[in-house]
Amino acid sequence: MNTSYPNLQNDRLIRALRRQDVDCTPVWIMRQAGRYLPEYRATRARAGDFLTLCKTPELACEVTLQPLERFDLDAAILFSDILTIPDAMGLGLSLNEGEGPRFARPVRTAADVESLIRPDPESNLRYVMDAVRLIRRELNGRVPLIGFSGSPWTLATYMVEGQSSRDFSIVKSMIYQEPLVARQLLGILSESIALYLRAQAHAGAQVLMVFDTWGGALGHAEYRHFSLDPMAQIVEALRADPVAGTLPIIVFTKGGGQWLSRISQIGSDALGCDWTTSLRKARRLVQDRVALQGNLDPAVLNATPEKIRSAVGDVLEDYGPGPGHIFNLGHGITPGIDPDHVKVLVDSVHELSRTAS
Amino acid sequence: MNTSYPNLQNDRLIRALRRQDVDCTPVWIMRQAGRYLPEYRATRARAGDFLTLCKTPELACEVTLQPLERFDLDAAILFSDILTIPDAMGLGLSLNEGEGPRFARPVRTAADVESLIRPDPESNLRYVMDAVRLIRRELNGRVPLIGFSGSPWTLATYMVEGQSSRDFSIVKSMIYQEPLVARQLLGILSESIALYLRAQAHAGAQVLMVFDTWGGALGHAEYRHFSLDPMAQIVEALRADPVAGTLPIIVFTKGGGQWLSRISQIGSDALGCDWTTSLRKARRLVQDRVALQGNLDPAVLNATPEKIRSAVGDVLEDYGPGPGHIFNLGHGITPGIDPDHVKVLVDSVHELSRTAS
Repeated sequence: MNTSYPNLQNDRLIRALRRQDVDCTPVWIMRQAGRYLPEYRATRARAGDFLTLCKTPELACEVTLQPLERFDLDAAILFSDILTIPDAMGLGLSLNEGEGPRFARPVRTAADVESLIRPDPESNLRYVMDAVRLIRRELNGRVPLIGFSGSPWTLATYMVEGQSSRDFSIVKSMIYQEPLVARQLLGILSESIALYLRAQAHAGAQVLMVFDTWGGALGHAEYRHFSLDPMAQIVEALRADPVAGTLPIIVFTKGGGQWLSRISQIGSDALGCDWTTSLRKARRLVQDRVALQGNLDPAVLNATPEKIRSAVGDVLEDYGPGPGHIFNLGHGITPGIDPDHVKVLVDSVHELSRTAS
Repeated sequence: MNTSYPNLQNDRLIRALRRQDVDCTPVWIMRQAGRYLPEYRATRARAGDFLTLCKTPELACEVTLQPLERFDLDAAILFSDILTIPDAMGLGLSLNEGEGPRFARPVRTAADVESLIRPDPESNLRYVMDAVRLIRRELNGRVPLIGFSGSPWTLATYMVEGQSSRDFSIVKSMIYQEPLVARQLLGILSESIALYLRAQAHAGAQVLMVFDTWGGALGHAEYRHFSLDPMAQIVEALRADPVAGTLPIIVFTKGGGQWLSRISQIGSDALGCDWTTSLRKARRLVQDRVALQGNLDPAVLNATPEKIRSAVGDVLEDYGPGPGHIFNLGHGITPGIDPDHVKVLVDSVHELSRTAS
């Protein structure tokens, strides 16, 4: 299926994810298509609301490509929301500015879990697959396209809590009190996410990423059972697919620095790291089994160009020589950032890593 | 000065902090005097507002002792706020229900930092010292009294941001862009906190604890410079005092699991651990140089008594044999918890650790 698209002109990301030599360190930015860009805000205003933006392939494609016009990025990432799957399950998602996501029908009981459907990506989530196809066509081989999903645990937190949470007390009550119900829910999510990412691969995604935004809120033992194992099932399912199985897979648990060694053993090609982890130490922990993606503190983008450049240099130096580094922030870019500062970041990564090698 | 108080009848906490043998594992709970207790809510209602509760020694004493009436706790902790020092610096603190703290005059510039006063504990913060003296008298030797302060970095986040924050973008801009100004601010805070904790020791506190609630938001290198080093200065200053220097000191960086080895080298007697860190692994990291305090996920207290008891057993087993464990939650207890569940926790710690030894 991928053969119908033009050849990739910039394969730095793919090579780095496979720990192969590159001419300079590839860079992309989590939430690179986002509110810090005036052109994004314009498209968003035209769409009316965030969900319409996600669900209209032409608009999702438009915002996906916007940062590539400004910056010399080495990847595009599908513009979408992490809650597309629970939305397709019919839980009644609404996203209100400043309030965060809400589900009208949260999942609380064994019966709620039993009744969940596994969405068919090419019907319930067709708009995502259409966006992937359109973006691949429009990208025309410039850079690879990253497809993604939220992790099972991360989706479960929103589905069970019904909204964003600080302590996750409801979903944690489920794992402590009804571990079998929680496991069933996470199993359904693992299957649904594997189907979803497989479909993105078939539609044209060239890298797959799992965002485990809230895994770091779990205890060390609970992380293994309720976040890592379900992600391992996804990786295993993807590896068994003739198309998805050949793509590089990135797993990112925010706040998971203590668990990198464990995470590196579930079969992904790369791990995301946030800024609390030294990449040098992370390399030791994962014994160069996987590539590492990260990990500049997004707050550095508030500083001057000189400081941004020197902070980029620090991250490159922290990773050290050898292949397998994909430069990124340690978390998504925040809305107030000056786009010119992003340009400094991207150019500095290429310039400083080229000099260094 | 301490000689004027009666002898300590329960020294489990002190012994465990010094890594000496105990008959069973001591336990106390962060925020044990708090909103989950109806008697606390009653006193709080009488006080009118939170700051009045903190600033009235009789009321602060009353709520400090309340949890000891219900539970077989091995320590009392001074009831106070972590923002007493910036309040005494005249930054205009207000605490509104549901909103979190706010400072009318945040600290943003070099001139703001220059003009900061170092509060004199026995004048500007006399109400805290009076509370310590009163609590010690009322405790009558039942259990030791823990005095505490927020860490320099944690206080700085509120002082610079002017309120609670999610990304700490203003205070991080200061450390990235104006590191010398940030260091000066943190230096003033280290000195002020050392004076404050020393005064608490002289007033009768028997253990001193530094809460670094937001250290975990820093990058690995920034943590060292802007949170750990300033805490090391506090420990050093306290060690030089004939009274404070003899007391056990606990340092707790929430989210600092990756840095435990470093933190264990600044001279404190014990480190707090949150639930993301395995105590077994933490012991390896700190090589039994220090005692460890923690680390049950507060969300476990929403579960049934049976589950709470088994989760307590898991934490005890995770720590393993030998001295140097102080049982606690990995973060403060949340407002909605059933006090009967806290009783189960406290009793389970004593029973299960006694059986095990």
